[in-house]
Amino acid sequence: MKIATTVLETRNTVKNWRKEGYTVGLVPTMGFLHEGHASLIKKCREQNDKVVVSVFVNPTQFGPNEDLEAYPRDLEKDKALCESLGADLIFHPEPSEMYKNPKTYMNIEGLSDNLCGKSRPIHFKGVCTVVSKLFNIVSPDRAYFGQKDAQQLAIIKKMVQDMNFDVEVVGCPIVREEDGLAKSSRNTYLSDEERKAALCLSKSVKKGMEIIKEGISAKEVLDEMKKVINQEPLAKIDYVSMVDSLTMEDVETVDRDVLVAMAVYIGKTRLIDNFSFEVK
Amino acid sequence: MKIATTVLETRNTVKNWRKEGYTVGLVPTMGFLHEGHASLIKKCREQNDKVVVSVFVNPTQFGPNEDLEAYPRDLEKDKALCESLGADLIFHPEPSEMYKNPKTYMNIEGLSDNLCGKSRPIHFKGVCTVVSKLFNIVSPDRAYFGQKDAQQLAIIKKMVQDMNFDVEVVGCPIVREEDGLAKSSRNTYLSDEERKAALCLSKSVKKGMEIIKEGISAKEVLDEMKKVINQEPLAKIDYVSMVDSLTMEDVETVDRDVLVAMAVYIGKTRLIDNFSFEVK
Repeated sequence: MKIATTVLETRNTVKNWRKEGYTVGLVPTMGFLHEGHASLIKKCREQNDKVVVSVFVNPTQFGPNEDLEAYPRDLEKDKALCESLGADLIFHPEPSEMYKNPKTYMNIEGLSDNLCGKSRPIHFKGVCTVVSKLFNIVSPDRAYFGQKDAQQLAIIKKMVQDMNFDVEVVGCPIVREEDGLAKSSRNTYLSDEERKAALCLSKSVKKGMEIIKEGISAKEVLDEMKKVINQEPLAKIDYVSMVDSLTMEDVETVDRDVLVAMAVYIGKTRLIDNFSFEVK
Repeated sequence: MKIATTVLETRNTVKNWRKEGYTVGLVPTMGFLHEGHASLIKKCREQNDKVVVSVFVNPTQFGPNEDLEAYPRDLEKDKALCESLGADLIFHPEPSEMYKNPKTYMNIEGLSDNLCGKSRPIHFKGVCTVVSKLFNIVSPDRAYFGQKDAQQLAIIKKMVQDMNFDVEVVGCPIVREEDGLAKSSRNTYLSDEERKAALCLSKSVKKGMEIIKEGISAKEVLDEMKKVINQEPLAKIDYVSMVDSLTMEDVETVDRDVLVAMAVYIGKTRLIDNFSFEVK
């Protein structure tokens, strides 16, 4: 497995693979890899001749009061995991390699206004920009994203369509701890007490999945879900919402495919979880 | 020479060329080709194995009160010219092939605020977006743009750098009529009388080139240039400006490489012209 820190080295490596006729998959990550990432890398390994994992804590997707500095990093552990899963290349650039007095950005209207975009106004602009850059650097056949970041996945699918990227976007299911908590690099912020409290997210998701059905009102589902979270004293809801799976706009009734998503503060740590429901 | 109207056909054609090891050049145009475009196609023909000319009047770069509908079109003439210059493929999509309920856009800060960006606020957002799409569809080795649209050229160079497009941007000199008028598809809007009046742009450029020198104030150069234009009763200045060649920000003194650019209304037709000056 190779580690590249420059755009040029990454590009040249991929170009040489292309000459040999290999297909290339990309797993974009911010590192501190957990089993959620591992599931993406495994899927990528199955579907492509060559596997690229990018490890880059992207500064442009963090707001001024967010956790850019605190975001956990452990490159040695990430390397070992990628190696064990059969990755061929880690792209691990410094911020200065990725951003040189940047003026250009990719952004998306509508899909980024609701849910996480509401509390993190510049987040998806940063995500769209860095993912576009990674696509241009690696030019992968396929790219892998977790369903845990459901709004991100919907936005990237739309971006790929709108901008004619020649990349297949593959979404992969949420990976959970045994007790239900969705795997996240940010779980490392939680104290023991908070770790227990954080279970209210997955419990709320479970409750929502039990009661959702075609024709039911969003309010009925969301009220039950919020009740579960509000029983937990350490939890503070950022949002619990039901949106159209494609447009990310609020829906009032389950009459189409929907995403039911939440962001909840456990102490100072903001966690997300979600589930999708398809109308037959 | 092939004519493709869909993204898929264009992409597949280029992919087949790539398999053969051919290099590919792209000349993005809005059609109604003149000798300015011809010079781009010729340069592209010299430097690449395969030449793609896109002919697409891009709606997203026109403001609501601009000349999208009136913009001249003549595909048959364009085909003949491209064929005669040895182009391999014309990509000529309908707007509905390029834009399907689009939400995503590319934009650039700073470089698009001044000059044409001031009078055409959404113009460069549309340009950046469509050029990105064309790059993703054609994935050219090189792309060719005229120096007449100097701000566009500077913006696209910066966009390519910022977004890591693997494309070499080649700028080509302004092509002029015998009497000096810069070639433009919009010259076709001019009446006989306006056609004569339009010479004030190139005369003003010529005056500026005569007097510019390192250390001179921008005001001194621009005042002389404006005087030339203001002698023409049919002309109305939109802007005559001197800017830093890289940042497109106004400069007060010629102490670095500068672009001296103008937009002038001749009757209802808005024409542009410019020259660059390099400090030794």
